[in-house]
Amino acid sequence: MSLLVQKFGGTSVADADRIRAVADHIERNLRAGDQVVAVVSAMGKTTDQLVRLADDVSSTQPRREVDMLLSAGERITMALLCMALADLGIAATSFTGSQAGIITDGAHTRAKIVEIKADRLRATLESGGVPVVAGFQGMSTDRDVTTLGRGGSDTTAVALAAALDADSCEIYTDVTGVFSTDPRIVPEARKLPRVSYEEMLEVAATGGRGLALRSVEFARNHHVPLHVRSSFTWEPGTLIVEEETIMEQAVVTAITHDESEAKVTVLGVPDQPGLAARLFRGLADRGISVDMIVQNTSTTGTTDISFTVPGDDLAASADVAESLVPSMGATGVETDDDVARVSLVGAGMKTHPGVTALTFETLANEGINIGMISTSPIRISCVVRSADAERAVRALHAAFELA
Amino acid sequence: MSLLVQKFGGTSVADADRIRAVADHIERNLRAGDQVVAVVSAMGKTTDQLVRLADDVSSTQPRREVDMLLSAGERITMALLCMALADLGIAATSFTGSQAGIITDGAHTRAKIVEIKADRLRATLESGGVPVVAGFQGMSTDRDVTTLGRGGSDTTAVALAAALDADSCEIYTDVTGVFSTDPRIVPEARKLPRVSYEEMLEVAATGGRGLALRSVEFARNHHVPLHVRSSFTWEPGTLIVEEETIMEQAVVTAITHDESEAKVTVLGVPDQPGLAARLFRGLADRGISVDMIVQNTSTTGTTDISFTVPGDDLAASADVAESLVPSMGATGVETDDDVARVSLVGAGMKTHPGVTALTFETLANEGINIGMISTSPIRISCVVRSADAERAVRALHAAFELA
Repeated sequence: MSLLVQKFGGTSVADADRIRAVADHIERNLRAGDQVVAVVSAMGKTTDQLVRLADDVSSTQPRREVDMLLSAGERITMALLCMALADLGIAATSFTGSQAGIITDGAHTRAKIVEIKADRLRATLESGGVPVVAGFQGMSTDRDVTTLGRGGSDTTAVALAAALDADSCEIYTDVTGVFSTDPRIVPEARKLPRVSYEEMLEVAATGGRGLALRSVEFARNHHVPLHVRSSFTWEPGTLIVEEETIMEQAVVTAITHDESEAKVTVLGVPDQPGLAARLFRGLADRGISVDMIVQNTSTTGTTDISFTVPGDDLAASADVAESLVPSMGATGVETDDDVARVSLVGAGMKTHPGVTALTFETLANEGINIGMISTSPIRISCVVRSADAERAVRALHAAFELA
Repeated sequence: MSLLVQKFGGTSVADADRIRAVADHIERNLRAGDQVVAVVSAMGKTTDQLVRLADDVSSTQPRREVDMLLSAGERITMALLCMALADLGIAATSFTGSQAGIITDGAHTRAKIVEIKADRLRATLESGGVPVVAGFQGMSTDRDVTTLGRGGSDTTAVALAAALDADSCEIYTDVTGVFSTDPRIVPEARKLPRVSYEEMLEVAATGGRGLALRSVEFARNHHVPLHVRSSFTWEPGTLIVEEETIMEQAVVTAITHDESEAKVTVLGVPDQPGLAARLFRGLADRGISVDMIVQNTSTTGTTDISFTVPGDDLAASADVAESLVPSMGATGVETDDDVARVSLVGAGMKTHPGVTALTFETLANEGINIGMISTSPIRISCVVRSADAERAVRALHAAFELA
């Protein structure tokens, strides 16, 4: 008998038919002798609709009330799933974040889980029932409703799996697993049977689909085995596990790309210590996450500093940079949102030199110019023109024989 | 400075514009120096949509989950209203039934309020803020989400007004008050400035619009002054108050009608004690509320027993009656859903004989046959053919000079 935490995303519960299909799947697991805790997102486009309503009503949107509003979505799904399970004779009980004992800090719209008091869920499991828990939401220590931000339902599922010491946390979505690259760009892309937490972190951070970065971190830190799979085909998907359990480590596991990046360059910065620090402190104070940074070595006494940010933060980043130009003694700011980041991820890179060389050769053969480069022990990322991104992905996927 | 509990029904918060109009109204009250607690229903047709979703998903629909589902509607409204108030610079805080301390029994879909722990609401008022509370919902002593059933939001508002010792409970709706009769039938119908609790109880029980019966009972028992008024015109509406505060009591205050009634007749019941009791016990055990009962005096040793029930309960009522025919020794059952009830309500009736006589004369002059009659000290109800109902209302409204 295994204890499974199964998370069903918005497309998996988009309508009455899909909710009944989820109930059928849970029934199959119970008949096989397993215990199931279900975690659900809001149905399909519900959250988008609620966001639009808020935009129609208000320009200020206090975050406490945004959380109250958005948390309505999961309540609807979980009640409906419990009803569908009841039709199959299964005693299911829905739990809000608060009722499930998911205690968070008070940072509305991006709360962090601080504790899970899972007594009610355990009692339901012990009585043979199926707890159905609202993803994405919790209750702050001040008894206010909070939400966990992007990828919050995945985080709920992983956190519950850790708290309940579950055997597996299954993330059901509309793709059949994690792929060697985006199958919409490379039809020969291969579904990966196993990926290490570290690789999955790099994949999630660089634009790969399947899992929210934060839930992967949580799973790695708490040793929760993850399984990304499809609620449309129900076939086995991709396991995300400890690196040492993967027998043979591929040099390159996956190619990802992210077209939402934008680039900012501060021109003619005097070559004095502390000026770059002032720039990146200014960006951090505005809550902007900088991805890559390149500073050319200076020979003329001045240098250009380039960095990339999420496209949504481009305007704010340019503001910060412009405002610092006078005090930095720089000459100007250029922005470019016509860039994309292409990344290669693979745990085997650590022990295989030559990946960088083959990457550069491949892109050069395609006539693709590399604007910026950054690396981690298991990742190489290159910034290229947006128009070149898909061609770069196809060429690298072929060069590293990932099909 | 007055403390006002203001309840806004579904049509009053149907879209973004109406929610902003409600926020403007609350701001006017605050500027006039009053304190406001807002109670909101689900937007427009939200509850109907949720009920339809549940019907699409499930045939069993456990009532605990129905409550979880339906309680999502008010969360959306209250968060949006708080946002609209924030745009006006007003510190508003939303509270679910649970957060507002509305403790109920565990009777899902028709829970009764057992206690209100209004500490958080009081703290919000003391800090100068506006609490915005979800109507219709509470939390059971087992920490489950419950709903209060039909008219539940009115009940929430009245119960909060009682708990907070408010100066007035204002029920905002899509009519401008309580009328001498339905203005859609009698254009000369007059808005009543004041009505006693007892009269309003009879009006609500016999098909009059404006307030749920249960909330009027609660208001009467806890001496909460009610004010039924429009959120479209914001003009003063109808006050519902203690009878002794109304200076001159009209003989007849209002004419109501209800076309949803249906009639069941059990034919040829032997004239023995206990047979009627068996019939009405059977109906009560099925949860059917019987309205009027007529049993003809027997001269032949058998009698016909007729009773009226809500139209929705006709099939179940006929079932019960049919099943008892053999053991009662009756000869058969007839049903008729082509009937309507027309009622005259007025506290002055108690001291003015002759109302019944004028009622009968008026209907006789119109050639309208009265099928059944029932009375209370301040009400006369007549069952007539559905086709005659509107004509009866018009004739009685004119005869008692209510225009």
